Amino acid sequence: MKSRFAPRAQPPYWAVIFTNQRTDDDADGDAAMAELMAALAERQPGDLGAESTRDASGLGITVSYWRSEDDIHAWRRHVEHAAARDNGRARWYRHDELRVARVERAYGWDVADGAAPPAGTGWDLA
Amino acid sequence: MKSRFAPRAQPPYWAVIFTNQRTDDDADGDAAMAELMAALAERQPGDLGAESTRDASGLGITVSYWRSEDDIHAWRRHVEHAAARDNGRARWYRHDELRVARVERAYGWDVADGAAPPAGTGWDLA
Repeated sequence: MKSRFAPRAQPPYWAVIFTNQRTDDDADGDAAMAELMAALAERQPGDLGAESTRDASGLGITVSYWRSEDDIHAWRRHVEHAAARDNGRARWYRHDELRVARVERAYGWDVADGAAPPAGTGWDLA
Repeated sequence: MKSRFAPRAQPPYWAVIFTNQRTDDDADGDAAMAELMAALAERQPGDLGAESTRDASGLGITVSYWRSEDDIHAWRRHVEHAAARDNGRARWYRHDELRVARVERAYGWDVADGAAPPAGTGWDLA
């Protein structure tokens, strides 16, 4: 099974944080749009992967990661050309918030690393 | 019902993106930890809200928003003092990735705004 975590990358890189509340209208359509956007991203220069989840109430968060801001602009134009934008807004989401952010630091931990993260990793943000 | 979207804020501000895979061990404990962390965040200086969701497989994404990087550091120390960190890692998560990012631009849309977002909003990232 493909990992649902994006591969680790060296900061700085960029993140597009997309939080959205699905309408009840078209669950299948929403899944299709998410797949379309993911497929479009995977073929784009600078794609560093994405993480996505949605709960039973329809609240979803998708974060896609990019090498540069220019890569995000190119992806956006690509998505727009596929006409996903307005359809998505009109039919699949009730509310959404999109943020473009520059990732300055990143930390990961896996159960295989042991129960106590080494000093200087994980939540050690200072 | 309290909105599950963070209130809109003027960039630049900061985001902590926390993607995590829950173990099967302790769903109640995880919910308690999420509530604890959210409660701790709400009492912290610089808190700009948070968005959080988790699917049935246990993959969760929580994004908390902060006025400054210093506010994130202070929150982290506060959480650590509450001893949530190591317990969370040891018992509740199988894998997690944490990223600290500076939000440069933000866009929102609600169904009440109409089906077609005005030019210059939403996905108009350029």
